[in-house]
Amino acid sequence: MAKNTDAALVVLSGGQDSTICLAWALARYNRVETISFDYGQRHKIELDCAARLADLCNVAHRVVAVSSLSDLGGNALTDSDTAVETMKDKPSEGEPALPNTFVPGRNLVFMTLAAAYAWQRDITDLVTGVCETDFSGYPDCREATMKALQAALRAGIDAPFTIHTPLMFIDKAESIRLMQSLGQVELFAHTHTCYNGQRPPCGTCPACVLRAKGFAEAGIDDPLIS
Amino acid sequence: MAKNTDAALVVLSGGQDSTICLAWALARYNRVETISFDYGQRHKIELDCAARLADLCNVAHRVVAVSSLSDLGGNALTDSDTAVETMKDKPSEGEPALPNTFVPGRNLVFMTLAAAYAWQRDITDLVTGVCETDFSGYPDCREATMKALQAALRAGIDAPFTIHTPLMFIDKAESIRLMQSLGQVELFAHTHTCYNGQRPPCGTCPACVLRAKGFAEAGIDDPLIS
Repeated sequence: MAKNTDAALVVLSGGQDSTICLAWALARYNRVETISFDYGQRHKIELDCAARLADLCNVAHRVVAVSSLSDLGGNALTDSDTAVETMKDKPSEGEPALPNTFVPGRNLVFMTLAAAYAWQRDITDLVTGVCETDFSGYPDCREATMKALQAALRAGIDAPFTIHTPLMFIDKAESIRLMQSLGQVELFAHTHTCYNGQRPPCGTCPACVLRAKGFAEAGIDDPLIS
Repeated sequence: MAKNTDAALVVLSGGQDSTICLAWALARYNRVETISFDYGQRHKIELDCAARLADLCNVAHRVVAVSSLSDLGGNALTDSDTAVETMKDKPSEGEPALPNTFVPGRNLVFMTLAAAYAWQRDITDLVTGVCETDFSGYPDCREATMKALQAALRAGIDAPFTIHTPLMFIDKAESIRLMQSLGQVELFAHTHTCYNGQRPPCGTCPACVLRAKGFAEAGIDDPLIS
């Protein structure tokens, strides 16, 4: 099958990082489409943000329901009975290093579904905002995982997929400066970050703290709160 | 996390091949569990068979709904408006080599969900009946795909997964003889193969034809029809 290498599919959660990826792709590809996953996340507001961002950027947007992940068990991002850990609740030595927001293999599932959808849209360039510099240490966000998955997608779908991870090795401040260089900082006003689902954001959950630190270090005002 | 290497999770569709895998695992592991995926397949009878087989073998059985695949587009195994190709409908030269039952990446999604579930059940050995000797040529059934996916699962879930594919390079007749050597041929009476969902099987669809050929070549009576 002839593939259009001038098109990209962005995995858009509605958060800060995937929105930078959207801006990154818009600057590089003639055709950009977006996909979001409804996996029983705690706050639907994130999906609303994704839809709004796609609309603002005038790109196609597809939402795919992934019930399987919430079916498979409890965790803080999908189970409203599970408290979100705060940053001080770091595991003791010898305890599992993963935060309780970990859904095993979540990004593997998302990227595989994204590839299956991209294949149907004649797209083989996938863009995701995963990065190793997040403090959370999710193994499915690592460069090694994305490279291995890329090989699995190429073999399993028989198409020359490339997974682009423009944020893999940069920190929050650098990613915000990247957004500034793309001239798209205003898009941050339509993103969602707060683990507690609040707008304006709570400012105290780990995600809000990380976001505020990034904007402060970048010396840029966050349009979501300013 | 300490993992029990004496346990296996079998991906059980209710078909012939995955049932051989179940028998294979029962002969090798102290603890065997099974997982089936409800992905909008044309005939629920396959899932009924999986549940019955797990019950007969006295192993745990989990059904996981995967709506995402049927959401992502039409194909003959999930879309009742799409006719199943018969064996004579081989693609012309220059046409795509994949049959219209192809769901891109289906096995990648299934195996990733299986791994996520196995992780929670303290299991890292996964068993699947995919094989390269099937005529259908699904790229997500190939050895190279399973090896690449195994690497992605190990990296992405951070656990020492092994994907076992005992049928990868044997044909239907050999797989039926394997079942005989395991003393479990009678289990075939509870499997489902027919693409047209008929019991007794239609005998004319590609899946029925392949099954009958395998039993004939193995010189063994199929307990489903005898």
